[in-house]
This record gives sequence, structure tokens and C-alpha cells, in this order.
Amino acid sequence: MRCTFAGFDGEFMKFIHKDKVMVYDTDYQGVAHYASYYRFVTNAADAWRSKYLHSYPYVNFVVVESKAVYKKPLRPGDNISVVLMPEIISDKALKQNFEIYRGKTLTTEGYITYVYIDKATWKATRMPDYLLKFIKQNKSSKQ
Amino acid sequence: MRCTFAGFDGEFMKFIHKDKVMVYDTDYQGVAHYASYYRFVTNAADAWRSKYLHSYPYVNFVVVESKAVYKKPLRPGDNISVVLMPEIISDKALKQNFEIYRGKTLTTEGYITYVYIDKATWKATRMPDYLLKFIKQNKSSKQ
Amino acid sequence: MRCTFAGFDGEFMKFIHKDKVMVYDTDYQGVAHYASYYRFVTNAADAWRSKYLHSYPYVNFVVVESKAVYKKPLRPGDNISVVLMPEIISDKALKQNFEIYRGKTLTTEGYITYVYIDKATWKATRMPDYLLKFIKQNKSSKQ
Amino acid sequence: MRCTFAGFDGEFMKFIHKDKVMVYDTDYQGVAHYASYYRFVTNAADAWRSKYLHSYPYVNFVVVESKAVYKKPLRPGDNISVVLMPEIISDKALKQNFEIYRGKTLTTEGYITYVYIDKATWKATRMPDYLLKFIKQNKSSKQ
Repeated sequence: MRCTFAGFDGEFMKFIHKDKVMVYDTDYQGVAHYASYYRFVTNAADAWRSKYLHSYPYVNFVVVESKAVYKKPLRPGDNISVVLMPEIISDKALKQNFEIYRGKTLTTEGYITYVYIDKATWKATRMPDYLLKFIKQNKSSKQ
Repeated sequence: MRCTFAGFDGEFMKFIHKDKVMVYDTDYQGVAHYASYYRFVTNAADAWRSKYLHSYPYVNFVVVESKAVYKKPLRPGDNISVVLMPEIISDKALKQNFEIYRGKTLTTEGYITYVYIDKATWKATRMPDYLLKFIKQNKSSKQ
Repeated sequence: MRCTFAGFDGEFMKFIHKDKVMVYDTDYQGVAHYASYYRFVTNAADAWRSKYLHSYPYVNFVVVESKAVYKKPLRPGDNISVVLMPEIISDKALKQNFEIYRGKTLTTEGYITYVYIDKATWKATRMPDYLLKFIKQNKSSKQ
Repeated sequence: MRCTFAGFDGEFMKFIHKDKVMVYDTDYQGVAHYASYYRFVTNAADAWRSKYLHSYPYVNFVVVESKAVYKKPLRPGDNISVVLMPEIISDKALKQNFEIYRGKTLTTEGYITYVYIDKATWKATRMPDYLLKFIKQNKSSKQ
């Protein structure tokens, strides 16, 4: 599902994280290397957790899926905005839909899906109530 | 070697690249970081180009889409096989479907889509005939 | 803030850059991977250039030497301060002495040495007067 | 101390690891990013441990110092040889002196110093006898 800034229908709460394209994100082609975009998303997801989840960084999320569609190249020094739109997939899985903007230009979009795991067994498990409640409440309050 | 892409018999030539999970691929959770899997795929795609494309590394491919589904974690020191199954999407776009195995266990699958670009204009352009011919011929010869 | 470089009083202007240890900086040992510290220093040097050099990011610096001494481990989520103390080595070379602190604890120290190059010849060349003047003036004004 | 292939005086056993400069090692300047050289050294040190240390990858080494001097740039696709010359600093510390060659051209030299740690206390501790014996014996046998 594609989501833009304006007119989005309340499915997600939006979270915007400012970042910058660094030299080490680029390759010899002069633009950001495709895998570096996941660094930008990781940074944004980290900021999201720091702000909202009290147990950060010890929450037990592991990534089970990642996807990015690259529309415009990013260059060294570019100031970017990473927009996160978290979505509960199941009581075990959280999807962070993302869009990366340079100014008002959408450069990249995709998602990272996380599963909550039990560290003892390394198996998917139900997220704690406070987490599910938080994300759902927060979504509602943004509508 | 097993290929899980049902219905793609003969669509792809398969290319297998051996690799190893390094310390810098892992994070504090003890397993490979999700973005590191794209490093494994980049390594395999590089080996594929080195073997088959005479103009490597100066071919003008840029990544327009990437996706990975993580099924099993990889640990430091794991020996892996990255299977590439290239697919021509259009005369401008090449999709590298991939699977990553540890032994016979499928740990990850996904794809990277590349577009051939004109370096002068940075626009998608038709791949040279020799490239299209090569990939198609090679595919046929593997059936 | 404490500066451990004895005998360098007034040699450097100090520049402090706040940063954070990310998941992708760590490895399976649970702490930041040794090469990741250079990412922190690159971030700080980038912030320094953004603030002081009007031609950023197109200044022609290349790294000719890097060194780090690791005193204390850094963990995911750690908030750090990277202190830069730039030093003119010659009219062609700039040394960024650095220290990385977690709170008041010195965790790492070292330096990165850059040489100004002529892009046409890829040879070391004299830095423009405005650069040399800037760094020297700034140093003086901080004493 | 500078060491060349020929005539080296028996202080070190030499270990040569072949590697390749990848796209993700480079940055927008068209050559390998300075921190990427540590990846090449990590790869070589990993190969050294895989070959010689039976407990790999669970040996308890942490990096306490890293240094590199960059003499010539490396470009994407370059085939390189990383030469390791391990040296026992104390019964707790191992120094991996390194040189990186493209063909016969020395491009980079430096070292990584590791300390053996007790995982329970995270303190420097004496390497097991088998390790010390191995490195010393191996050194002798190469002279």
C-alpha cells in the first residue's frame, strides 16, 4: 500500500525522523548504495523505539522481511526525512512502512517487518500487552 | 540444489556463490543483521558479473528494488550458498532472484531488481544486445 | 571537557559532536565493532565540515592515515560525544585528533589524517588559502 | 616497522589472504572508503583463525588498537592480497601486522592489536597455552 503525507487515512501513526546521507552510504556510482537505505530506516525505527518503548534497546524484535523501492537517487550530504508508519500485522508482528523524502520528493518507499521473539526459545511470541495497547492507542489518537 | 520458486522451471539459469557470515555482518543479538544479507547477494551478483559480463565492473546497473524474507537466522562463521536466478523483466531491467542456504536449509529468499541506465542522462535505457542475448542464451542452455 | 593530549594546549580548536551507537555498529560480542568507531569519527568530521567549510561536501580530502585505541567498549544505544581537535600538519595535510566519550568516560582516542588532493591529478596539493586561514584563525580564537 | 615480502627477518609468520574490493567498499570519490580496509583485514584475520585456531569463531579476542596508512587508492573490482604477520605482544595480546597489495604494489599497511579476554569478567587474561605455543611454534617453523 502506498501512503503519502497528505490525506493518509488513519491506518498508521506517522513518525518523521531527520537524517543525512553520509559518505559511507555512497558508492563509486556517486549515489547512496541500495543497502544503505536500510540504515536510514533502522535509524528511524531506533528513534521511534527510543521515544515510545520504555524497554529499548532490549526489546526482542527481529526482522523477518525487508523491502525497498528506489525511485530517485540520494547523494552525499542530502538531508532526508524518513517517515515511519507502524502497522500491527498480528499480535506477534509489527510492520514499519517507510517513505524517504529529500525535501518534498519521495525517493524511496518500502517496509520492514519485525516479529517479537521469546529470547529463550528464539520463537515468535505475542507482544506484551503494553506494546500492543500502545501502538493501537497511539494510532487511534492520531486519527 | 532445491529451488523453491514454483512454476519457474527453466526461467532462470542458476548461479551458486559460496560465502561466509563475518563478524561485521552480525549485531548484538548474535546473528546476522538483516541488511547484511544484501551484502551476500551483492557479492554473488558481483561474482556473476565477473564471470559473465566482459565490461564488469563498469556496467551501468542501478538497483531499483530490493526484497528479502528471513526464514532462519545466520550466525558468525556460517558457510552459506547464495543461489542467483537472473530473470529479464524488460529490455531495461534485470531481476536477480536469490536464495541463501546454510547447508540444505533455506534461510533467506528475495530479489534485487536492476535497471540499465545511460550514464550521461541517468535514465533507464535498453541493455546492449550482447547483454540481452547473453542472458537469454544462457538461460536456454541451462534448460 | 577533559582533553588527554598533553602538551597540546591551544593547538586545537575542539569540536563536539553528539552521536549514538546503533544496532548495526555492534557485533555478536554485544559491543560496537572496532571499525564502527571510524563511522562515529566520520560523522563528527562531516558535521565539522558542514559547519565550517562552505564547499562541503565537495572538498577534496582523502584519508591517508587512521588510528584508534579502544579503552572501553560501547554498547547499543549508548549516547556518545565525539571530540575533534583539528591540527594542520602541513599546508597539504589536516589531522583530526579525536576522543570518544560516554558521559565523562573516555572510551576511545585516535586520529584521522586527511590530505588535500587535486582531483585532476589525484596528487597531494596545497589547501586553498581560505581553508588554511580558517583553521589557523579558528584555532587562535579558541585559545 | 615496514615489512616487505622478501627478506623479512622471521619475526612473523606470514599469511596471505586473497580478497576483492567490492562496490560497497567504495564511496562517491570512486575509491575504497578508508574504513573498508579494516574489513579486508578482518576477513584475513578470520581466515587465519579458521585455519589455525580450533575454537574459532568462539575465541575471545577483542580489538584494542587499529591503525592503517593508506598509500595508494583501491578501486572497485581490484583483486588484492592481504598479508598478515602475527606477533605476540604479551601473553595476553596478539598484534596482526598487515600489508595490502594490488599485484606487487603496496597500497596500505598497519596493524590490529587484539587482547584475549575472559568472557565472564571482560578483562584481559592470559591466552591458553595451546594458542601461545601454536603461534610461537608456527613462527619458528617459518624461519
